[in-house]
Amino acid sequence: MTEAPQDPRYDVIAIGNAIVDVMAPCSDDLIKELSLNKGGMTLVDEEGAKRLYGAMGPAREISGGSAANTLAGLSAMGAQCAFIGQVADDQLGEVFAHDIRAVGIDFDTPVRAGQPATARCLIFVTPDAQRTMNTFLGASQFLPPETLDANAVAAAKILYLEGYLWDPEEPRAAMRRAIEAARSAGRKVAFTLSEVFVIDRHGDDFRALIADGLIDILFANHTELAALTGEDDFEAGIASIKDKVPTLVVTKGPDGAVALQGGERAEVAAEPIDKVIDTTGAGDLFASGFLYGHVREEPLGRCLHRGAIAAAEIISHYGARPEADLKALMVEKLG
Amino acid sequence: MTEAPQDPRYDVIAIGNAIVDVMAPCSDDLIKELSLNKGGMTLVDEEGAKRLYGAMGPAREISGGSAANTLAGLSAMGAQCAFIGQVADDQLGEVFAHDIRAVGIDFDTPVRAGQPATARCLIFVTPDAQRTMNTFLGASQFLPPETLDANAVAAAKILYLEGYLWDPEEPRAAMRRAIEAARSAGRKVAFTLSEVFVIDRHGDDFRALIADGLIDILFANHTELAALTGEDDFEAGIASIKDKVPTLVVTKGPDGAVALQGGERAEVAAEPIDKVIDTTGAGDLFASGFLYGHVREEPLGRCLHRGAIAAAEIISHYGARPEADLKALMVEKLG
Repeated sequence: MTEAPQDPRYDVIAIGNAIVDVMAPCSDDLIKELSLNKGGMTLVDEEGAKRLYGAMGPAREISGGSAANTLAGLSAMGAQCAFIGQVADDQLGEVFAHDIRAVGIDFDTPVRAGQPATARCLIFVTPDAQRTMNTFLGASQFLPPETLDANAVAAAKILYLEGYLWDPEEPRAAMRRAIEAARSAGRKVAFTLSEVFVIDRHGDDFRALIADGLIDILFANHTELAALTGEDDFEAGIASIKDKVPTLVVTKGPDGAVALQGGERAEVAAEPIDKVIDTTGAGDLFASGFLYGHVREEPLGRCLHRGAIAAAEIISHYGARPEADLKALMVEKLG
Repeated sequence: MTEAPQDPRYDVIAIGNAIVDVMAPCSDDLIKELSLNKGGMTLVDEEGAKRLYGAMGPAREISGGSAANTLAGLSAMGAQCAFIGQVADDQLGEVFAHDIRAVGIDFDTPVRAGQPATARCLIFVTPDAQRTMNTFLGASQFLPPETLDANAVAAAKILYLEGYLWDPEEPRAAMRRAIEAARSAGRKVAFTLSEVFVIDRHGDDFRALIADGLIDILFANHTELAALTGEDDFEAGIASIKDKVPTLVVTKGPDGAVALQGGERAEVAAEPIDKVIDTTGAGDLFASGFLYGHVREEPLGRCLHRGAIAAAEIISHYGARPEADLKALMVEKLG
């Protein structure tokens, strides 16, 4: 590992899906009628997306993508960020690019000509505020590894990777290159496991990355932790992995979150809010808050608290991009 | 005028702009910096739209269009509606078509191939909840008069026309044909004046339509009334026009609305709400509520009250399409 250059340009650079969310409220009956995987994320092809869109009520389009959401939160708090992800040359691609640049994030991945279209995620939000996601990956899965800007990766304190994007071949290769670039520059690698189905398919890869010491910060929720470790018991899962990653962050939805780092353990309760409207992006924004504190070397408990505050903001409205002034909110809540 | 066929299929058929709204909060400073016409609607070309979009913060896309919003409200209350408007063969066109059909509105205008793109309206929402609209009309202005389905127009109790669309030539010709078709079938024609700049350009046309007895229901706000009548005084404006249209509805923003019909005058206060978030669509939804009562031949005051309730719902959130269950809301408020 070579010495890290002075003054990295970015706090966090992320590689993730470049997705526009298409969101509509829906009844539990519709979820059943369409046989959707309630609360989960399911990949759909273009025909499947068309069929589900036809069954969906009037919607709104809001930029999404897990890692992109995390960066939007970080940027709103004042962090310097860059995003790597693939959009097509179409209107939804313009929407995604506009929205991510509009919050001050560098986004230079060249647009991809031709089909398929920019990724979209059809999100059905039930009255209990659960989001059921159906993703047409489109252009997002064709991020070419050869266009990866290793200098940009080396110029960030943290490389943040989205587990969802480990599934398609080209982005997986791009992420492996990025991990190399980050490690060569002495940077940290953060990884979010994203979803159980990804672990079902690529758990061996993830366990190998961890065993090789390539993951510095691991984000998971409690079901992903169980899938990764094979331990159904939460504490047994934590115990089996805590010595293999320098920083482990496990979220538990309404039950808060736990982090372990350097022998220390911290916990946080979920931040109370008046009404949960839409849980889309809760984990993504939890990561925003945590990473914001982490790059500033704040105490572990404070990093978690920032995560809980950012997650509470995102679930209080539709969409996975922050609406409130997160910077002001952090000052108000944490001083 | 021939006899109206029994059992018209539609309560309201509307011709209007087929627009997707691109909405973002913004500061008053940005409105000044960009020299925008605060509170108004300004037409912009593709270059202008690109420039303004570049200056806009992260946005959300929600289907809009004045008359289309009115129909969405009517449909949500339970009315049968059809829409005529022009989208292009692109993703925003799909979004518009999906959203209007998803609320049960018939929309059969064939998609237009090639450029320009589907219309979009860049809406800057200031902290005072005022919306400043900048519209790229795109495909919307090329609605071909020859494709107008006169049978569909004849099959609706009310033909509703959006003044905005009187400006471009082809839709104006389509609207003139539609008025003919409606009158031949013994149907009512409703017209909304939309915006002062339209009256500045086409006031003579509007006054001629009124003088010829072709407008049965006229919607205006107080500034549009002044522009149409040349009377700055509200009551003088009302007096100068009330005998020329069977039903006159004039909205006054936070000061409520007035309606005159068959020698009767009714007034309504604005419906109180906790917090005004975004005034986009207030007039459009007022028209929804009023028309819903009107087609059911309800008392004038009750029609106005429905308008005020629907307008209050729309200004309590972002976007000009209803989010609450308007049917249930009407029952709750009016019994």
